[in-house]
Amino acid sequence: MKKHNFSAGPCILPQSVLQQASDAVRELDNSGLSLIEISHRSKPFVAVMDEARALVKELLNVPEGYEVLFLQGGASLGFLTAAYNFHKEGEKAAYVNTGAWSKAAIKEAKLLGEVEVVASSEDSNFNHIPAMGNISQPSLHITTNNTIFGTQFKSMPQLNSDQMLLADMSSDIFSQEINVADFDLIYAGAQKNMGPAGTVMYIVKTESLGKTGRAIPSYLDLNVHIKKDSMFNTPPVFAVYTSMLTLRWLKGIGGVAEIQKLNEAKAKLMYSEIDRNPLFKGFAQESSRSNMNATFSITQDDLAPAFDKMWNDAGINGLKGHRSIGGYRASMYNALPLESVQVLVDVMKEFERTHG
Amino acid sequence: MKKHNFSAGPCILPQSVLQQASDAVRELDNSGLSLIEISHRSKPFVAVMDEARALVKELLNVPEGYEVLFLQGGASLGFLTAAYNFHKEGEKAAYVNTGAWSKAAIKEAKLLGEVEVVASSEDSNFNHIPAMGNISQPSLHITTNNTIFGTQFKSMPQLNSDQMLLADMSSDIFSQEINVADFDLIYAGAQKNMGPAGTVMYIVKTESLGKTGRAIPSYLDLNVHIKKDSMFNTPPVFAVYTSMLTLRWLKGIGGVAEIQKLNEAKAKLMYSEIDRNPLFKGFAQESSRSNMNATFSITQDDLAPAFDKMWNDAGINGLKGHRSIGGYRASMYNALPLESVQVLVDVMKEFERTHG
Repeated sequence: MKKHNFSAGPCILPQSVLQQASDAVRELDNSGLSLIEISHRSKPFVAVMDEARALVKELLNVPEGYEVLFLQGGASLGFLTAAYNFHKEGEKAAYVNTGAWSKAAIKEAKLLGEVEVVASSEDSNFNHIPAMGNISQPSLHITTNNTIFGTQFKSMPQLNSDQMLLADMSSDIFSQEINVADFDLIYAGAQKNMGPAGTVMYIVKTESLGKTGRAIPSYLDLNVHIKKDSMFNTPPVFAVYTSMLTLRWLKGIGGVAEIQKLNEAKAKLMYSEIDRNPLFKGFAQESSRSNMNATFSITQDDLAPAFDKMWNDAGINGLKGHRSIGGYRASMYNALPLESVQVLVDVMKEFERTHG
Repeated sequence: MKKHNFSAGPCILPQSVLQQASDAVRELDNSGLSLIEISHRSKPFVAVMDEARALVKELLNVPEGYEVLFLQGGASLGFLTAAYNFHKEGEKAAYVNTGAWSKAAIKEAKLLGEVEVVASSEDSNFNHIPAMGNISQPSLHITTNNTIFGTQFKSMPQLNSDQMLLADMSSDIFSQEINVADFDLIYAGAQKNMGPAGTVMYIVKTESLGKTGRAIPSYLDLNVHIKKDSMFNTPPVFAVYTSMLTLRWLKGIGGVAEIQKLNEAKAKLMYSEIDRNPLFKGFAQESSRSNMNATFSITQDDLAPAFDKMWNDAGINGLKGHRSIGGYRASMYNALPLESVQVLVDVMKEFERTHG
C-alpha cells in the first residue's frame, strides 16, 4: 500500500530523487564506481558540489555577494557557527524565542557573549510568533518555522542596513519565496525540503563576515569553508548529491514560486478541516500557523486510539505530535503531494461520521 | 571493465554493502519507505544506530567503560572536539606531528591552550614516525596513520595510567587489532574502512570526560552526545546505516584479526614490488611504512605518462599521489581485494619489461 508520509523530518523526498540516489550508490553515471567510493576531489563530485551550490542560488534568486556552503553538523552546530561568525565580541546579540530550536540557538550564543531575548512566546507554550519592537542590537536571530509547535514567521523582521539578520530556516527553506537580501545568514539542515539528513546548507553575505573580533575554530569559520569552495574537509557526498537531485526536481516542477502555491493549497485544505471538524482543534494561533507543520489535537482524548487506528490503516505515517505538546502534527513538506493531505482529511471526515 | 579502486578516501567499499545501501535508499526492509525519509526516532532507525555502535564494540573488543558515537563534521571537527574534551585548562597538551592531519589537529588545540609538539618528522617531510621520549603532559595526541605520506605507528605510545592517549585513527581504524584500553579517545572519519563520508566515529572512555574545567559548546561535548545515545540531533542516517553494513560485512568475513592478515598480505605484495622494481622507489622509511597507503615515485620522471597510461588502461583508479608529495599512492583499505594489488603489481612488472 502507498504510504502517506507526514514525518516531521527526516521526511518525504520525491520518489524520482530516491530512485536516482539509489542508482548512484550502485554506480555514478556509468563511471564503474559508486558515488560513495570516489574522491571528493574527482571531477564528477566537484561538478555535483558546484551544481548543488548553483541551484540554491538560482532557486532562491540569491544576489551577488552571497556564498552557498554545504557543511556537516546540522543546524545544531549551525547555532554555534552563527554565533561565532556574527556575534560581535563585547556586544549583545538579539534573539527571538519561538520554541525549542530557538532556545537551543540561544544556549550556544550565550557561550560567546550576552544575549537579549527581544521577543518570546514561551508564556503561551510557543503557540504564536511574538510581536517585536524596534531592535537596537547589531544582530537578530530568528527561527523562521517551528516544527514542534507549528508556527511560522509570516513576514520577516525589517532591520536597519547596518544590522544583521540571521535565520535558521531548517524547516521552511525552499517552501516559499524569500528575499535573500534581507538576510546576512540563512542556514538550514537538509532533512526537510532539501535532502537527507547529514548536511546543513549556509547562505552567507560575505561582506558581513570577519567582523566579530573573535578567533574562530576552523570548522566553525564560514570564511574557511568559502575559501575552499565548501571542501575544507571531505563533504558528506551522499547528502550533498541527494540534495542536488532534490533541487533539480524543484527546478523541474517550476521552482519555489510553484511549490509555494502547492504548499499554500495543502495548508488551506488541512487547516480548513481542522477548523471545521468538531472532533479536532488546532494548536497554533491562526495568524502564526505554519504551512509546513499543522499541529492539532483531538477534542475527546478517549477517542484517540480509534483515530490512530484509522490513519494507520489508511497508510499514513508520522502523524504523532512531538512529545512536548502531544496530539498530532501533519508535516507537509515540499515533496508531500496534495493527494496525501486529502487522504488525511478524508480520514478525519470519516472519523467524525463514525465517532462524532 | 572492473575498476581497481586505490582511491585515498572516500574509497572502495564492499560491493555487497553498496548494493544493500542502494536498496535501502529505495525502500528500507519492506517498510514502504526509504531509509532517508523515516524519522531518526523511529524503531527501524534506532535499531540501526544501536547495531552500528554495538558492532564497533564487538569488532574492536571495546572494554567496559567506553561509549561509541556516530557524529558529523569529520575528523576536522574531531580535532576541536578532542581538544575541548581533553585539553585541561591551564595545562599543556602534547601532540606528535606526523603530517598534515596532525598539524590541523595542533592548530585547533592551540585555540584552547598551550600545545607542546613532543615529536615531529617535519624536517624529513614526514617520511617516518618520529621516536618519542617520556611524555610529561596530561594528554598525548597522535595520528595513527598518515594517508598523505604513507606512514603508520607500528606500536602505540605507552603512557602512565593518569595520562590520556588520544588518537585520530581515520585511515587505519578496523584495519588491525588494537588495544582500546590504551586509549582515552579514538576518533575516525568513516570514509576509509568504515563507510561513506558524512560521519565520524568516536570511542571514548567515559570516566576521562568532564575534567578539563571548560564550558563546552553542546555539539562539541561528548557527554552531551553520550546522554542522547548519539542522537542529540538528527544523525546522518545514510552514513550511519552504510557504516553499519560495512561493519556487518567485516564481522562476516572474520573480523579485524582476519582483515589484518589480508591487509598485511596486500602491503607485503605492494612493497616487495616497489623495492624490487628499479623503476620505482618508496617514499616512507621502511620501519614506518603504512599498510593502508603505499607512497612511491617513479625513478625517471619522463616515463610517468607511459606508466599513467598503463595503469589507467588496466582499470586502476585513484593512484595519483597527494599534491604535497607527488608521485603515486596505492591506498589499500579493507575492502580492496588482494587481486587489485596483484593487478597493479603486474602493471609495474610489465612497465619494467617494456620501459626498463
